Amino acid sequence: MVDPQVFLNMGREVLAQQAFSQLLGAELSALAPGRAELQLALREQLKQQNGFAHGGVISYLADNALTYAGGTAMQVPVVTSEFKINYLRPGLGERLIARAEAVHVSKTQAVCRCEVYAVADGAEKLCALAQGTIVKLG
Amino acid sequence: MVDPQVFLNMGREVLAQQAFSQLLGAELSALAPGRAELQLALREQLKQQNGFAHGGVISYLADNALTYAGGTAMQVPVVTSEFKINYLRPGLGERLIARAEAVHVSKTQAVCRCEVYAVADGAEKLCALAQGTIVKLG
Amino acid sequence: MVDPQVFLNMGREVLAQQAFSQLLGAELSALAPGRAELQLALREQLKQQNGFAHGGVISYLADNALTYAGGTAMQVPVVTSEFKINYLRPGLGERLIARAEAVHVSKTQAVCRCEVYAVADGAEKLCALAQGTIVKLG
Amino acid sequence: MVDPQVFLNMGREVLAQQAFSQLLGAELSALAPGRAELQLALREQLKQQNGFAHGGVISYLADNALTYAGGTAMQVPVVTSEFKINYLRPGLGERLIARAEAVHVSKTQAVCRCEVYAVADGAEKLCALAQGTIVKLG
Repeated sequence: MVDPQVFLNMGREVLAQQAFSQLLGAELSALAPGRAELQLALREQLKQQNGFAHGGVISYLADNALTYAGGTAMQVPVVTSEFKINYLRPGLGERLIARAEAVHVSKTQAVCRCEVYAVADGAEKLCALAQGTIVKLG
Repeated sequence: MVDPQVFLNMGREVLAQQAFSQLLGAELSALAPGRAELQLALREQLKQQNGFAHGGVISYLADNALTYAGGTAMQVPVVTSEFKINYLRPGLGERLIARAEAVHVSKTQAVCRCEVYAVADGAEKLCALAQGTIVKLG
Repeated sequence: MVDPQVFLNMGREVLAQQAFSQLLGAELSALAPGRAELQLALREQLKQQNGFAHGGVISYLADNALTYAGGTAMQVPVVTSEFKINYLRPGLGERLIARAEAVHVSKTQAVCRCEVYAVADGAEKLCALAQGTIVKLG
Repeated sequence: MVDPQVFLNMGREVLAQQAFSQLLGAELSALAPGRAELQLALREQLKQQNGFAHGGVISYLADNALTYAGGTAMQVPVVTSEFKINYLRPGLGERLIARAEAVHVSKTQAVCRCEVYAVADGAEKLCALAQGTIVKLG
């Protein structure tokens, strides 16, 4: 079994190689086989015309958290095959947190769920719900 | 009826107000009631560790194109309620193009479809397929 | 507050009025605001050519459980607006059980999740995962 | 190349083996590689309490049409991995028709789209839109 901190560090190295994740400022705050937590400080650049997080930022975070959950569950190189997201509330506040979990894992795919929370004044509010399929790379 | 160029310019003003769309470099290349085309030059910053467009970039483009298609179909302020996306091919090339269309429109919502293409050496290849619901704001 | 048994009985009356649910033999085994459990004995008529539950039976059960969860959360007449389902395992065994829950509820919609289990020799196995939007009727 | 009528007949044999499709009365009205059309007469038994087609009937038809489109595109035994459906209008009338098409096909999967129409007094009205993934069996 891999040491939890080593596992998290490995995940962070992958994130550091994703130029887009760096552009957005995503941080991997927790990682275990089949579970991942990604965070993002809500800078002005990540917003849309109404002052809340652009939907694309929320879906990026959900997509990436789903991939981490599925990839660590399967322990092979993976890609996101598909996902679905419901936006529930405007992403308002200082920070977004996505928590994803692999619900069913086979040799070829993991089906995962994700909740995205917006954190305002320290309180988390659920702002999106996602479900998707992560598959073994090619 | 609004002049097509005026309509497109109005859409571009909305895009110019989305800080996140500016960060990514999205351009609105066509707009008509119920139809939208968004493009993005694939800079290094929009890629992931394998050298192709990050899934979050593709889903951003799909989400935003769906919203434009739904919003121009309904002609009221809207938000994306939910969408689903299937990634079909790696987003490789110089550019991404998303084309969305409102398939069914009611007073309260528009259900829209979107195709995202990657353009390499001038040839378009379909790289994602999305379907979602755009709803009247609040 | 409504008595739990009265609440369940009201839900069963609705189910009794759905000719299709009667054709399939669905039973409402639990109901509370925002939560529902539907069951189905897996008769031969509900199967496909490989001997397991037809996907349409599983999606029927998920769809209906989502609607009950959303409808009891909102306490107004509702319809399913959209849903997504991932099939995880063949539906093999004597019985299917769908458990749904409203995760986020507003005045106009409820976003719900559902798990569908196949019961073989008394053991439950997760066979599908769904997420959908239930909206206020008309 | 297979004769079109022979191809359609092969598809009808598969449908005849699906007990659930027989229970519902589904008919395969057109079939070609990557394309399928399924129909259903709207008997009372397929309705819900409001007098229109139960959502489960519409999703059954979409799911099955997606599977035929994907299976004939891939020409191997397949199952539906996942799909998403948006209900657009009540399914009112004499008949439902689902038309599905494989949009992208690889060795392991086909991503397909489907439209479901309700036919009343001979006029077709779009009542649902679906998108899903069909995968090679086992």
